[in-house]
Amino acid sequence: MTARITDLATVDLRFPTSRELDGSDAMNEAPDYSAAYLVLRADDGHSGHGFTFTIGRGNELALAAARAIGERAIGLGVDDIVHDLGGFARHLASDSQLRWLGPDKGTIHLGTAAVVNAAWDLAAKLAGKPVWELLSEMTPRQIVDLVDWRYLTDALTPDAALEMLRRQEPGRATREAHLREHGYPAYTTSAGWLGYDDGKLARLCRKAVEQGFDAVKLKVGGNLDDDVRRCRIARETLGPDRRLMIDANQVLGVPDAIRWAGALAEFDIWWFEEPTSPDDVLGHAAIARKIAPIRVATGEHAHNAVMFKQFLAADAIGICQIDACRLGGVNEAVAALLLAAAKGVPVCPHAGGVGLCELVQHLSMFDYVAVSGSMANRVVEYVDHLHEHFVDPVRTRGSRYLAPSAPGYSAEIRADTLRRFAFPDGEVWRGGRA
Amino acid sequence: MTARITDLATVDLRFPTSRELDGSDAMNEAPDYSAAYLVLRADDGHSGHGFTFTIGRGNELALAAARAIGERAIGLGVDDIVHDLGGFARHLASDSQLRWLGPDKGTIHLGTAAVVNAAWDLAAKLAGKPVWELLSEMTPRQIVDLVDWRYLTDALTPDAALEMLRRQEPGRATREAHLREHGYPAYTTSAGWLGYDDGKLARLCRKAVEQGFDAVKLKVGGNLDDDVRRCRIARETLGPDRRLMIDANQVLGVPDAIRWAGALAEFDIWWFEEPTSPDDVLGHAAIARKIAPIRVATGEHAHNAVMFKQFLAADAIGICQIDACRLGGVNEAVAALLLAAAKGVPVCPHAGGVGLCELVQHLSMFDYVAVSGSMANRVVEYVDHLHEHFVDPVRTRGSRYLAPSAPGYSAEIRADTLRRFAFPDGEVWRGGRA
Repeated sequence: MTARITDLATVDLRFPTSRELDGSDAMNEAPDYSAAYLVLRADDGHSGHGFTFTIGRGNELALAAARAIGERAIGLGVDDIVHDLGGFARHLASDSQLRWLGPDKGTIHLGTAAVVNAAWDLAAKLAGKPVWELLSEMTPRQIVDLVDWRYLTDALTPDAALEMLRRQEPGRATREAHLREHGYPAYTTSAGWLGYDDGKLARLCRKAVEQGFDAVKLKVGGNLDDDVRRCRIARETLGPDRRLMIDANQVLGVPDAIRWAGALAEFDIWWFEEPTSPDDVLGHAAIARKIAPIRVATGEHAHNAVMFKQFLAADAIGICQIDACRLGGVNEAVAALLLAAAKGVPVCPHAGGVGLCELVQHLSMFDYVAVSGSMANRVVEYVDHLHEHFVDPVRTRGSRYLAPSAPGYSAEIRADTLRRFAFPDGEVWRGGRA
Repeated sequence: MTARITDLATVDLRFPTSRELDGSDAMNEAPDYSAAYLVLRADDGHSGHGFTFTIGRGNELALAAARAIGERAIGLGVDDIVHDLGGFARHLASDSQLRWLGPDKGTIHLGTAAVVNAAWDLAAKLAGKPVWELLSEMTPRQIVDLVDWRYLTDALTPDAALEMLRRQEPGRATREAHLREHGYPAYTTSAGWLGYDDGKLARLCRKAVEQGFDAVKLKVGGNLDDDVRRCRIARETLGPDRRLMIDANQVLGVPDAIRWAGALAEFDIWWFEEPTSPDDVLGHAAIARKIAPIRVATGEHAHNAVMFKQFLAADAIGICQIDACRLGGVNEAVAALLLAAAKGVPVCPHAGGVGLCELVQHLSMFDYVAVSGSMANRVVEYVDHLHEHFVDPVRTRGSRYLAPSAPGYSAEIRADTLRRFAFPDGEVWRGGRA
């Protein structure tokens, strides 16, 4: 008898991070990092865990979207899902009535990500491998079949992607061995949240250096004079050879973004992240032309592969920042990796939040082994919080992510955490602020 | 004592339109036209009615989003809202946690539209005027202040918008008189739904001609041979002098869209609507370059003013199709009108669905009186269904919308309808399909 998905469990999980101003930036003043958490359960006892990430209020909407999309998985055969994850992702997204709410963006797409991520967790657990390895062992044809090509062929055809992936096949084993031994490079954002004072910024920059980080990111975009002072502190602490990046979290218009980059250029900025609206492909392109050699980076709010196709086609980004939950799960992230590799643009995923580090490490490691084949100019964001809530948390050595070895997508959250941080009834929230 | 908003009422309203295949197209096979309906109530007895439009499943998500956004209006003074509708719209959109779910797109933005639309209904009722007239009597400065300019100034500055509006001031009275006498031109989509057979298509095209329509739109994108045959039938019935438009509802990739337009060009197509992904500015620009003189049209799924800014800047659209609920309500629609007028691109709003005709007529009439100052190459979509559910339904004469005269935004739905079509407990849905 074939196992089938028979049950969907969901948890509205929120961490009261706003109490400490961890994660504060110019747009997101006081986030409570949250996960719309979903478990797909099969009648043979197997389960897949997935989530999408939000920053507090509205997590209930993402959860309701995940449930609406997740119901489309009920009754499907587990074998059918795990052997055709491309077809499964397309099936989830093809309810023509739910599609109206996006399409392929916003809350409904966040919900799709939770379900697709859960299916990948299930598939990887059944295969006895971490997701990065499951992906890295797929044939080029299998990888290409993961992607919904409908809107992408003007930039990259499936045949061209196939050829690109085949060129990387001979080196896969060598790179996998290198990855297992040395891990994957990370950068830290922990030093530079906008809510921190100068003393704390300097102290945390020194700590980052001591931990071995070669790249540190600062939040900017509140007040330019403050940002000049903060970048000076950071650059002095980091010395001339480490990389410094800045992130305005979308608060600026195009002319102001160009002004900001001009004023901060003296601090040798590697990339300028989210300078303006995440929807503004042409705006990013205009900024990129003006502020070179500073690279423009965006993607944590780029809602689908069509957006990445355009950012790349317009030479609007020099760093491609995919997000494991903003995109509709692993499949659409693979599409973005292929598009970026075809243009030779490095992918440096967005992470932090709750569990984004846990997820995106898999995507970058797969990119290294089988897609771009390179770690040059590539770093995964690292933020050192909330990892303790995961069954298989990220492991780092110095400034590098170590390759996960446990089967799955590292998405599973500890039962105790699910209980304590459930909103609004968990002990952390009971009697507290909403 | 100042009146305050003290209450929010919502209704999940769905019409079982899928039973007749009204509204069927290549992407949206079987829509149940729905409204996430919201009433803002003040403690002095006044109320504003608004809604956002969906096509069935997921309407509950849009409604939950509208409630989450709407709660930000509770406690605000009615005078403060109606005298600073720009500030009110920015306040609604500025919850940094809810913003993460968009930003400015998808379900949360649909919810914002319902609340902003309700506030305009309230403001217009208090002023004793229909919304188009309320808008048309604002000073250029008041109009400019309705808009959130953060991401728009690289295309149009507030000062340039002000100057443009001032140039139209002397002609306002003449145009308003013309509008009141002659109405505003419409086109019909009722003839060309994809679910209709050839006989029904021909019959409905003849009926459109008899009703006086000069422009008719057909749904395409299923099968090209079928579309060639259907366009031939439509063109033969319409004769050479009426306008024929086609709409693929996003089902095609860029290369296929170009192929489709090439095959249908012999039928003298005025515009090709939604040829591909609504997010693909550069794709639309590529299509536009290839298929001229056929104009590319899109906008019903263009989620915010930043998208319209780009479609216009890239010469990707020759027809700008704003939607009264996809955009975040009247304020963002005004932004789109200003951007389009600055580029000289005609705005032909998306309508149909539930109540979209009722809303967008106000926007086009305002555009004529105070913004573009022209009806040339401008038509508002008209679909002849579901109007009977509105307290102040659209009125037409021949193929023209007549200017609404009742105070408000024509958004209020009859109490009897709210009861009968409420989902899932209204009589239309009880015991029926989900």
